[in-house]
Amino acid sequence: MSTENKVKLYGFGAVGQGFHSYLVDNNEEDRLHTVIVKDETKKRKPIKAILETTNPNTAQDKTMHAIVELISSAEEAYGIVYENLEIGKNVISANKKLIANHLAELVKAEKQYNGKFLYEGAVCGSIPIIRILNDLFANDPVRQVSGIFNGSSNYILSKLFNEGISYQEALQQAQDLGFAEADPTSDVGGYDALYKLIIVAAHAFGKIVKPNEVLNIGIQNISLADIEFAKKHHQKIKLIAKSSLEGNKLILSVLPTFVNSENDLFNVENEYNAVLVESDNIGQHFYKGKGAGSLPTGSVVYSDLKAIDAGYSYSYSKLDKQNIQLANEEQINVVLSAETVSNIQNIGVDISNFTPINFDGSQLLGKIALADLKRNKTLIEQKGVSVIVIEDENLINELRNASVKEAVKL
Amino acid sequence: MSTENKVKLYGFGAVGQGFHSYLVDNNEEDRLHTVIVKDETKKRKPIKAILETTNPNTAQDKTMHAIVELISSAEEAYGIVYENLEIGKNVISANKKLIANHLAELVKAEKQYNGKFLYEGAVCGSIPIIRILNDLFANDPVRQVSGIFNGSSNYILSKLFNEGISYQEALQQAQDLGFAEADPTSDVGGYDALYKLIIVAAHAFGKIVKPNEVLNIGIQNISLADIEFAKKHHQKIKLIAKSSLEGNKLILSVLPTFVNSENDLFNVENEYNAVLVESDNIGQHFYKGKGAGSLPTGSVVYSDLKAIDAGYSYSYSKLDKQNIQLANEEQINVVLSAETVSNIQNIGVDISNFTPINFDGSQLLGKIALADLKRNKTLIEQKGVSVIVIEDENLINELRNASVKEAVKL
Repeated sequence: MSTENKVKLYGFGAVGQGFHSYLVDNNEEDRLHTVIVKDETKKRKPIKAILETTNPNTAQDKTMHAIVELISSAEEAYGIVYENLEIGKNVISANKKLIANHLAELVKAEKQYNGKFLYEGAVCGSIPIIRILNDLFANDPVRQVSGIFNGSSNYILSKLFNEGISYQEALQQAQDLGFAEADPTSDVGGYDALYKLIIVAAHAFGKIVKPNEVLNIGIQNISLADIEFAKKHHQKIKLIAKSSLEGNKLILSVLPTFVNSENDLFNVENEYNAVLVESDNIGQHFYKGKGAGSLPTGSVVYSDLKAIDAGYSYSYSKLDKQNIQLANEEQINVVLSAETVSNIQNIGVDISNFTPINFDGSQLLGKIALADLKRNKTLIEQKGVSVIVIEDENLINELRNASVKEAVKL
Repeated sequence: MSTENKVKLYGFGAVGQGFHSYLVDNNEEDRLHTVIVKDETKKRKPIKAILETTNPNTAQDKTMHAIVELISSAEEAYGIVYENLEIGKNVISANKKLIANHLAELVKAEKQYNGKFLYEGAVCGSIPIIRILNDLFANDPVRQVSGIFNGSSNYILSKLFNEGISYQEALQQAQDLGFAEADPTSDVGGYDALYKLIIVAAHAFGKIVKPNEVLNIGIQNISLADIEFAKKHHQKIKLIAKSSLEGNKLILSVLPTFVNSENDLFNVENEYNAVLVESDNIGQHFYKGKGAGSLPTGSVVYSDLKAIDAGYSYSYSKLDKQNIQLANEEQINVVLSAETVSNIQNIGVDISNFTPINFDGSQLLGKIALADLKRNKTLIEQKGVSVIVIEDENLINELRNASVKEAVKL
């Protein structure tokens, strides 16, 4: 049996099954030669391909046209992806953690050994944002890419906002419905969004940064008081991954953020993801689509395979072309809040210039550097302090003025 | 001089110049061999290519790698595009009117003579919607594609809504700023949006329809009273091109439509375009970007050239695969309004089942078939009657109930 157009698939979870169903729908099921699964005795719908248990043995991969890696472990995925690129194979992956942590060496291996490495499924599910950044914005100076990159946390934030339930209740509901993992840290802690941001920034700005160099604060400390505050001021809270380039300074962060109804991200609800791109020539672009799921993500994995068939690979036209530096000293406006003011006083952050904006000072408005938040992240999480970016200058002024009036009255 | 990777460009207007600047930025200016212009003595920035006056002489085109057609006349463009496809050339066009009117024969010529024919610049400027429909949604049953496909009319509607000026004043401003043509009929009459809809439907549903089979009503009759009505009911009016497939019935229209703040199109203002796609597997996708302009449209024309270099062509995977019929008998809810009720009575439409929703009956709510509107389009335009689609069921019920109460009172 010739294996010249054959595919070997690692992992047969939701996305793997979605990918398989696209092969079936396109009369290409015969291309799927082998599927590597953890447990071959597990009950599943019958497929034509050979089922083997996990034991990454890339020797057989040599004869395959493409390797599709859709397992959950980033560590195991690294072996599969790297070893196959090293033998010049075409590799498709949707493993954002693996890619974010090893992008530079994977791109190097792709070039050196003449394979192709595509990973549209790793970022924002069905939105083909990597292809768009790589192709359409290839020659256009990009100023900013931001968005809602994690469906689980967005689902929880929608619940908090629309149903007035607590974070713990909303998380439980999301887990019951399969929108959040049993260990939700990667989603609600902003790590998943951070990995995607790292990949996006490589294509948008040509700079590969390590995840641990960038601040990510999740939604775990968002309280009902924060939600009430947002509603009172006609805002919603969204977990926003943001990258922007000013001169040669690259500013990256994943942070809960107040957005108003004029922001395209305001209407992105539940499990949807969205991306805003701003560039010099094309101007502003906005995309919204399902951020995860068997068929939405399966569709872009299948479209990666078709792209490989057609000889496509990412051009990385901006990579390392400019001397870009990560700028964590960037100051941002935030609202810090907690159950009591003493919690905020004990996170190691200098809040002497912050303005109290509620009656007992447990809610403060002020400017702080990303690096200061990053340095004190563990304490912030432990003390239950929520950090929410506030960008609306009118609202900032309104809060400051109200605070001054209050102080005069006292 | 070898012409193996050379490009011949017809037309050097805004988009042609934008395309040229992408060639320059990518060190590919040498690829531009000849530019055909109307007047070679016209003052313009110097370019390296040969400038020739218009006189479509495709004999020389035989040696070119690609022909890029960016002139305004659809009739002249037809000769250029068709004759070059007939000699097996790669052709790029942004001429929506030409493509919408001749798509079936152009696709046939492309296949028969083995050229490539790409036209991303023809639809929604910088939004790569044709590529997305052709690639990402290739194997996904699409249910609906709708959007704001014309920037000029959207700009005018934004002005009407935000500044309380009349349609004539807003049109004048748009013309002064270059957002509308001296003869604005194609834009404000919904023809430009219609051409784009025809192209979108071919890729989304695999059915090529002639523009004159589809209803398009523009924004010329939208009055300040319509805008006030929209504001009162928390709606905006947008010119929406819509295509949907129900079973094998394809429903197409371009019509002014009330949208509320839950609709992604609500926040699309000024010269921006947007597209909503709904499919079985991928779900809902939304895209927003600049709908026109030198660099936004030039960027996708350049990306078409790079796609041709890479061997890409549209797959038309859905074309003529199903027995799809155009369904103009589809009934829609509309608000008809005019200065006086007699104007509405004289458009040839049966309004006996319509409900009056203002005091003098010059504003009526009711259900009507697309075909009935299409048959009486000339009278509707002449009598100054505005036709606005209303989709919000709550608002329809609210208007009906208010009308009943009013009738009881009288």
